[in-house]
Amino acid sequence: MESHGTPYDLESLETQTARPRVGAFDRWIARKLLAARGNPPVPIRLWDGSEVGPGAETAVGRLRIADRSTLLRLVAQGELGFGDAYSEGKIEIDGDLVQTLTALFNAAEPKGWLTRLMTRRNRPRAHTHTLGGSRESIHHHYDLGNDFYALWLDAAMVYTCAYFPTPTVSLEEAQEAKLEHVCRKIRLRKGERVLEAGCGWGALALYMARRHGARVTAFNISREQIAYAREQAERQGIGSLVEFVEDDYHNAHGRYDAFVSVGMLEHVGPENYEALGRVIDRSLHADGRGLIHSIGRPQSVPMNRWIERRIFPGSYCPTLSEMARVLEPWNLGVLDIENLRLHYAKTLEHWLERFENNADQVRARFDERFVRTWRLYLAGSIAAFLSGSFQLFQLVFARAGSHAVPWTREYLYTQS
Amino acid sequence: MESHGTPYDLESLETQTARPRVGAFDRWIARKLLAARGNPPVPIRLWDGSEVGPGAETAVGRLRIADRSTLLRLVAQGELGFGDAYSEGKIEIDGDLVQTLTALFNAAEPKGWLTRLMTRRNRPRAHTHTLGGSRESIHHHYDLGNDFYALWLDAAMVYTCAYFPTPTVSLEEAQEAKLEHVCRKIRLRKGERVLEAGCGWGALALYMARRHGARVTAFNISREQIAYAREQAERQGIGSLVEFVEDDYHNAHGRYDAFVSVGMLEHVGPENYEALGRVIDRSLHADGRGLIHSIGRPQSVPMNRWIERRIFPGSYCPTLSEMARVLEPWNLGVLDIENLRLHYAKTLEHWLERFENNADQVRARFDERFVRTWRLYLAGSIAAFLSGSFQLFQLVFARAGSHAVPWTREYLYTQS
Repeated sequence: MESHGTPYDLESLETQTARPRVGAFDRWIARKLLAARGNPPVPIRLWDGSEVGPGAETAVGRLRIADRSTLLRLVAQGELGFGDAYSEGKIEIDGDLVQTLTALFNAAEPKGWLTRLMTRRNRPRAHTHTLGGSRESIHHHYDLGNDFYALWLDAAMVYTCAYFPTPTVSLEEAQEAKLEHVCRKIRLRKGERVLEAGCGWGALALYMARRHGARVTAFNISREQIAYAREQAERQGIGSLVEFVEDDYHNAHGRYDAFVSVGMLEHVGPENYEALGRVIDRSLHADGRGLIHSIGRPQSVPMNRWIERRIFPGSYCPTLSEMARVLEPWNLGVLDIENLRLHYAKTLEHWLERFENNADQVRARFDERFVRTWRLYLAGSIAAFLSGSFQLFQLVFARAGSHAVPWTREYLYTQS
Repeated sequence: MESHGTPYDLESLETQTARPRVGAFDRWIARKLLAARGNPPVPIRLWDGSEVGPGAETAVGRLRIADRSTLLRLVAQGELGFGDAYSEGKIEIDGDLVQTLTALFNAAEPKGWLTRLMTRRNRPRAHTHTLGGSRESIHHHYDLGNDFYALWLDAAMVYTCAYFPTPTVSLEEAQEAKLEHVCRKIRLRKGERVLEAGCGWGALALYMARRHGARVTAFNISREQIAYAREQAERQGIGSLVEFVEDDYHNAHGRYDAFVSVGMLEHVGPENYEALGRVIDRSLHADGRGLIHSIGRPQSVPMNRWIERRIFPGSYCPTLSEMARVLEPWNLGVLDIENLRLHYAKTLEHWLERFENNADQVRARFDERFVRTWRLYLAGSIAAFLSGSFQLFQLVFARAGSHAVPWTREYLYTQS
């Protein structure tokens, strides 16, 4: 379990866990916590059963807090303390988890000294995106075991936002539709060479080779993912078309007809966006096309500290103006941006449902804390997309003066 | 003619216009000028008929320079001197005007001391976007007389990029297709209230009312354009649906279902983008939609100094990251961006053709210099879009957490 969380240094608080009676001070702290979150329609039930906050008639859900130390941890550690306390079972959420989290995210802008205190404590730690640091971060998340992800991803193991032509299609159909949507957007043709930066378990590279006869060079620094992807390429008999490289994309060489990166930019610090653009610039033919698909933000904010610590070390979701830093220094022009925010909420709903259906297996392999950690991460991500804190930008680009660009986007929506 | 150009202070140069013999110094200057533009495939013919630069076999066009003072003006005044000298007939361009200008724009990044000198001199003058300053700038360009624009715009007087479903449709069809494309993108419904900032001669506002039954409040600070638009509203019998306000959009009040601004952002200085966003934020309902259509840039560069001085005072074309400054402070989320760069080149080709067909009337009303100024402006703009120096961004947005957003973009491309 070392890789999924740092042990807490809560000894000083643990001494207080003899459940002392709830006092005026505890209720004052709870009210301040709610005010600091903009007074969401989510009351807090304290360890003696008493409640603080809005009444049942307006409540969307309810936070149950196990003891004083947990209450104080929310003050001291903000969202990191909230996430960890939920993982440990010291916080329970009554009512629908996603709806309650969405209500928390949707509340008005927080105010007050407590917020300032919490915000200060919530600044993400400095994170260096050296290759060594990135390997460690990627290992932390992606090398939990392919079997674990297979329990709740689709059959092709696509761990990014799907594209649902209609909201009711299955996750498998939606992920395949996403792969095809990407291939259409870059107008992929047979025999073309594609560079992929951050290929996950290889689903897009394999699809491009299998369905479109493209020759793909795909980079990833996750050993387990690369091993899985290579095995798939052999199984599907397309080993000669796809090369999976266990290395950093900065080491890519050669020239390509297209560049794609789906769900990788979140792991690249903004300080490295220009360097990513340099790789794209030197890799792309004059009439090459590119696509970057990434979680984004409407406004620049640091990643939730709990997610950044416990789930995705070093992650950051950029605004569009920050994403543009990949392209603008290299005179690459944006052709098309599509926001698939609600598609990611839908994708995550499928993942969470499958995860819950397999929670017993996850618990048997890891433990209850791990189950609760991932439940909160998946449900919290749905809430973030529903509330608009997260967006999903799919961005198509070419050299600013390229004439090899489609006349309109109609071809994306007509059957071929 | 005072409003179309500032008289030149060239007395010191005019004394040299007795066409002195071309010497080694003149040829050296001409070679340096070409090098400073990245050695484009465009030779310079000097006033004695001798040529400098690439040979006829690679040449796309040719610059003919009338005298030494013009040559020196190119050094001293860069693109401003080039434009003015062309207007005055001191520079002629042999070969296709658009192709030659495109070749000049497409040449490699310029280098050398002369470039540095010219770039320093070419910085646009500081321009204050006060309401008074804006009125003056807008008057300069848009109040040349509606009759003048009617000579070369489409019948609905749309002076922004058209949308050509296929490259061969007429300008009239393409402008109507653009108006409909905009209405579809914001999913305009009957009875909805629309705020338009910068309405030109009113074509979009009139279309929204006439075809979709929308109630539109449209702002413009050009007196001639507003007068024309009001007359059209009466003629079309939709005066009760459209209100044309001769005022700055900052003075808009009330709440609207949609915000649109087509071809206005180019006249708003980046220092005022956040204030534009404030107007949008306070004007838009919770589930409101918005569209901004603007000429953009792949990289941040000042406007061509000749265009900024002689054609569009105070104009600036933003990069996408600069455009995002309108939205990001207000938590507005980008739903969709489409780049219509080649559609603007096509639109301008239609305008230039109509302009040339009516050049005699323009000359009779103004003078030859005016004809040459507008010819260079229209042809140069085509070259800027073809070479990628200009882009055209059509950006759709809503509040970051809005659920009143379309599920996919397919509805834009299916017949209704």
